[in-house]
This record gives sequence, C-alpha cells and structure tokens, in this order.
Amino acid sequence: MALLVLKFGGTSVGTTERIRAVAERALHLREEGHQLVIVVSAMSGETDRLLGLANELNPRVDGRELDVLLSTGEQVTIALLAMALEAKGCPARSYTGAQVTIRTDSAYNKARIRSIDDARVRDDLEAGRIVVVAGFQGVDEDGAITTLGRGGSDTTAVALAAALKADECRIYTDVDGVYTTDPRLVPQARRLERVTFEEMLEMASLGSKVLQIRAVEFAGKYNVPLRVLSSFGEGPGTLITTEEDAAVEQALVAGIAFNQNEAQLTVGGVPDQPGVAHRILGPVADANIEVDMIVQNVGEDGRTTDFTFTVHRNDYEKALELLQGAADELGAREVSGDVHIVKISVVGVGMRSHAGIASRMFEALSRENINIRMISTSEIKISVVVDEKYLELAVRALHDAFELEEEPAGLPKEQQG
Amino acid sequence: MALLVLKFGGTSVGTTERIRAVAERALHLREEGHQLVIVVSAMSGETDRLLGLANELNPRVDGRELDVLLSTGEQVTIALLAMALEAKGCPARSYTGAQVTIRTDSAYNKARIRSIDDARVRDDLEAGRIVVVAGFQGVDEDGAITTLGRGGSDTTAVALAAALKADECRIYTDVDGVYTTDPRLVPQARRLERVTFEEMLEMASLGSKVLQIRAVEFAGKYNVPLRVLSSFGEGPGTLITTEEDAAVEQALVAGIAFNQNEAQLTVGGVPDQPGVAHRILGPVADANIEVDMIVQNVGEDGRTTDFTFTVHRNDYEKALELLQGAADELGAREVSGDVHIVKISVVGVGMRSHAGIASRMFEALSRENINIRMISTSEIKISVVVDEKYLELAVRALHDAFELEEEPAGLPKEQQG
Repeated sequence: MALLVLKFGGTSVGTTERIRAVAERALHLREEGHQLVIVVSAMSGETDRLLGLANELNPRVDGRELDVLLSTGEQVTIALLAMALEAKGCPARSYTGAQVTIRTDSAYNKARIRSIDDARVRDDLEAGRIVVVAGFQGVDEDGAITTLGRGGSDTTAVALAAALKADECRIYTDVDGVYTTDPRLVPQARRLERVTFEEMLEMASLGSKVLQIRAVEFAGKYNVPLRVLSSFGEGPGTLITTEEDAAVEQALVAGIAFNQNEAQLTVGGVPDQPGVAHRILGPVADANIEVDMIVQNVGEDGRTTDFTFTVHRNDYEKALELLQGAADELGAREVSGDVHIVKISVVGVGMRSHAGIASRMFEALSRENINIRMISTSEIKISVVVDEKYLELAVRALHDAFELEEEPAGLPKEQQG
Repeated sequence: MALLVLKFGGTSVGTTERIRAVAERALHLREEGHQLVIVVSAMSGETDRLLGLANELNPRVDGRELDVLLSTGEQVTIALLAMALEAKGCPARSYTGAQVTIRTDSAYNKARIRSIDDARVRDDLEAGRIVVVAGFQGVDEDGAITTLGRGGSDTTAVALAAALKADECRIYTDVDGVYTTDPRLVPQARRLERVTFEEMLEMASLGSKVLQIRAVEFAGKYNVPLRVLSSFGEGPGTLITTEEDAAVEQALVAGIAFNQNEAQLTVGGVPDQPGVAHRILGPVADANIEVDMIVQNVGEDGRTTDFTFTVHRNDYEKALELLQGAADELGAREVSGDVHIVKISVVGVGMRSHAGIASRMFEALSRENINIRMISTSEIKISVVVDEKYLELAVRALHDAFELEEEPAGLPKEQQG
C-alpha cells in the first residue's frame, strides 16, 4: 500500500465526463490498496472566462481580488470531483488551499508556499477517504486567498507529497511522458523511463513544457519521486528522480531540447575593459527583460570584444533600442541582432563524468553543414544557437548521433567496451 | 454619517455592466459620507449553472460538497465588485463567509448563522475601505464551507447589520418596495412607506415574495431597520421597522396578500373524539408535507365533525392518498379536496386594537357574492379561502374596502371622527 498524490490539469477535468473518468481512475488505484490525495486545476477554459470578466471591469487588474476570483476555478473542480467519487460510493472530502491549510507568503498572483498543515488530510486518509485538494492556491498570514501563478497546481501536488512524505507524486498530463526530444520533430523520439530532476529542469526550461519548473525544483529539493503520465492512456509515464535512483539505466545524454522563442543580440567592437558587461546588460535588466545565454569572446584585435546574448523574441525590439544607447556611450562599433535563430541543447547528467559529448555534438552538426553561432555550456548541458532553418535537421542529427532512439543498455556505452 | 449594509441580489449583479452600476451607486453613498458593507449574491444564472454540473455527476447530490461548489458563485461576485470599486479609485476589500468569519452550524445546504466575528470588517471600515461580503455562506466549527439555502444572502446582510449595529440594512431588489397588494392585480396598489416586521412576515409568507422570511425574523429579533428598494430606480423603497417606529403613519390594514399555490383537503363525517386531528394529520406530517391552514368545525349532528386543511398544490395528490387511508381507519364519511382555491389575507398590526376588520372584510366579499370556504385568523391577519376564479375580484374588493390606495392619514380613521 502506497500513499500517492495525483495531479490532474485543466484538460483532464475539462468536462463532467472527464471528471468522472478521473474518479474511475482513482477508484481503480484505491482498489489496489493505495491511499490517495488528488490535486486538481480549474476546468479548462474557466480561468480564462474569469479573467475575461475581470478585464471587463479593470483591464489592469492584479493583486488581492484577482486571487479571490481565480481561486474559485479550482474550488468548483474539487467539489465536482468529490461528488463524482461519492456518487460511486467512495467517501471523499474536498479542501481549498486555505482549508488544508497551505500557507503562503502574500505575493498575490505569484505566491510561494511557506508551510503545509497536513493534519486534516492525514485524518481523512486514515478514515479511508480520498482527499481532493484545490491546486494553485493558498492563504497568507492574514487569511487572504493567494494563488501560485499559472501552472501552480503542479507545485501544490509536489508540496503536498513532500509534506505527507508520499511514495510518489503523479502528474497526469496530455502527454504520456518525457521524451528524448519532441516527437513531432523526430518520430523516433523515445519516452524516457527515468530522468533526473536536474535533467528535467534543463529540459523544461529549454522548451519541453511538460512540468512547471518550480514543481520540479521543489520535488528535487525534498526528494519527492515525481511521475509524468497520460490522463487518457495507461502507460507508466516517466519517473523523475534522483541521480542515484535513475543511474540503473542512465545514459550519457537524456534528451535534446530546443527553444524557438529566443532572439540574438550582439554588440560588436566593444572596448575590452572591466565593467563593460554590466554597462551593456544593466539597462536591459532594468527594463525587466530576461536574458538567457550570454557569450563574450576575445576580439580579433585584442583591444575590443564582441558581446552577444539572447532574450525572448517578444523583448527583441525593446532590447535592441536599449542596446543602441549603451553602445553609443561605450563607443562600440555596431549593434546587430537576429530573431531567426533557435537554441538547441543536449542534456544529460552523464556528461559530467564523460568527455567527448561536446565534440560528438559539434561533429554531428558539422556533418550536416550547420553553422554554430553561439555555444554555452553548463555541468549537464551544452547549448548551441543556430539558424532557425536548421532546427529539424539539427535535432534529428543530434538524436541520431547520441543514439537516443535506442533503450540505454544499463551502463554508458563508453564503459562497456 | 451612517453605517449602511447594502445587499444586491443575483439580477442586480448579473453582468459586469450591472456590477459597475452597483459600484457607482455605492460610490455615490460613500461621497455622502456613509460607511458601507455590501453583501452580494451569485451572478444570476451562475447557481443554476453550478447545480447543472453537479447533477451531471450525481443527480441526488447534497451535503458538504454541494456547498463547496455553490459558494464559488458569490466568491466570483465579491471579487468582481471589489475590482470595479478599485477601478474607480475606491479602496475595497472582499471577504467570503469563512473569511469574515460568519460562523454557522453544520447543516449543509441550509445552515444557520451562529455568530459573526466583525473585527476584520470594522478594521477595513475604519481604514476607509468599502467591504464586500459574500452572501449565502458561512463556515462551520470544523472549517467546512456551509450555505444558508436559497435567498440566504438577505439573511447574511441582516446578520451583518445586526453584528455591526448598522444604521440601516438596504435590500436592493427588482421591485421598488412593498405594496399594499400585487400591482399586477390591482393597479391602484400603493407602495408602503413603512411596514412592521410582523406585517412583513405575514405578507412574505402569504405570497408577496420580496424578502426572505428568515431575514425579516432576524431583523425583527435584533431590531435592524430594513429597507427594500429598487436596484435600478432611485425611490426610497419601503422601510421595515418596529411597530413603535412605524406607528406615525400606521393604518389599520397594511395590505392584502394572497397565495395561489395551495390546495384544500377535507375529511367529512369524522367521529368527534379526542385524537382525531392527530390521526388525520400524523401520516401527512410523516410524509414531510407541510400543512398551512387547519380548520375544524362542529358537525351538524353533534357526533361527527368536518376536518379541513390546506397543503401546497404539489403535495395534493400524495396528501389525498394518505388521507384516504386515515379516513378508512377512522370510519369517516368521505374525503374530498380541491386544488382550484386561493387563500387571501388581510394583514395589519392595527387590527389588534380595532374590532370590525373581520366584518368589514366579510361584508366586502359578500357584496361581490364571493362564497367563503374557510376562515382562519391570527393576531394581525385574517385569511379566507375562496374559489380560485374570484382571486382578482376579491383582492380588488378588499383593497377598496380598506381604502388602501390612499395614504394613511397619520391616525386610524376610526379615531379621527
């Protein structure tokens, strides 16, 4: 018998039929002897409907009252799911975030969970009930309703699983797991049985939008085994876990991620002297523009350098404008940029202890005559920026080069020979 | 400067435009220097939408989870109204029933208010904020959400006004006050400036559905001046108050109420002996059928009697069936009944101290050749049951006979001569 926290998103509870299907799935797990806590989101479309009403009254609405409004979305779902369970003869009880209690700070619209009082939930589980909890919401010290921001239901589920020391937190989504890369791009992409928290973080932040980043961080920090699986199918999904637990089948590279939403900006011929990076990026940061990759290389003449970075495409025009001002002040040669780029990353904890990943990556791209514009590396990933038009070609070439369509053979190939 | 509690029903907050209109009305009162607490219902249609979803999952749903579901309706409205006020530059804060705190018993779907902690509301009022409170809902000792049953928002408003010792509780509705009778029946019907709590209770329970009975009881018990007025117009409405305060303009009769939803049942030739009433009504009460008027008269022969009562038309067939069984056991002569009846009542605290009201009533009906089937009296009302077809004629005749189209002249006419 295990204690499981299940989380179903908006699409999975989008109609009463789907809510009934969630109830059936839960009853099946209960018959297998598991104790269940189910975290749900608002029915799909509901949050947008509520935001629409709010915008009619105040187009710039935020703060306390927006959370009072939006939190009703999940409250409707918990009541309906509890009713569906009771209609099938299963004792159930629903809780809003405030009722659990899920205590947060007072940062309305983007609150962070501070603590969870799990006494009520434990009592219900011991009494044989299925507990249904509203995702995405909590309550601050003053008793005001808060929300965790979009996608926060994943975080609620993981935080509850951590508080309850659950055996597993299962996130049901519209995909059946985490893949080596996007199957729409590479039909041979393979579902991963396991992936580490760190790899999942890199995959998620790089564009494989399966899980909320904050939820993965939380799960990693509190060591909550996290499983991503399909709401509609039956497969085992992908287990996200610690490096030790995942090592059994650990490959060098877990997957290929990519991000098509970035744009590249370059200040050319900047005097190579201390404080330059700050003077270039300061105005950008002040404008609340998030910067992703930053690359600075030694200039050809030894006295000037080129400074390149990437931002979200939506921020490109604004960043370019700000950069022009900074470049003039610095006496830089030129400012240039390009939105037609894509960032592609090879991710894997295995590369920590194994050399040669980078060269195998560059070789694969070179074989296809793909020019690399930028390179940036971290402990468990290597990212390159290339022309947008090479996206499919590059991802397929890398997927082949690292033999990701094949099941890993237990140990990295390099050690087997 | 007065402290006012305003209550707006579902129609008054049915769209964002109407919510904006409520905000404007509140701002106008605020500019006049009043402190405001506003109680709101769910937007019209929302409660039915939620009930529809619930019924899809469980056609016989009730209890705890139904209240979790339905309470979201008012929560949406409080957030939207607070946003509308803030959009107009007015500081505002919304509270659910649980947040106020409005403490109730645990009778889900029909809870009763036990106590109100008004500390938060007072703090906000002192800080210059308009406070917006969700009607219809509260929270029990265990922290579970409860609802007060349909129309319970009136009760919330009155209870809050009592707790806050508000100067007035204003119930905004789709009528502009309480009338001497239904203006659709009698065009000369007049809006009452004032009416007593007791009269209002008799008017409401007899079919003039303007206010929740429980709210009027509550207001009477805690002596909260209650005003019924229009959401859409500007008039002063009707003030519902104590007999002493209303006496200035007190007439003998406040109004003529009627109820078209009753049916009459008679057991004829019942042996006139102790315990008969109980043996007749026992099975009816056991079937949860509510009985309104009960009349028993001495039989013609002195040994048997006729026993007559009224029930809601929906319960007529069932009551008739039950009665047949009881009549057989008692050896009664016959069971008969009629759904084509109407109950008409003359209501007024003035009749307590003045004789002649009954005779004037019977004289007016007799003048129109209207046969009276049943008569029942209480301290402040006289009710008769007549053939349904006489409804309009009887109400108009009584409205004329008691000169209700004229403003009362300060003192009852009988004392002026």
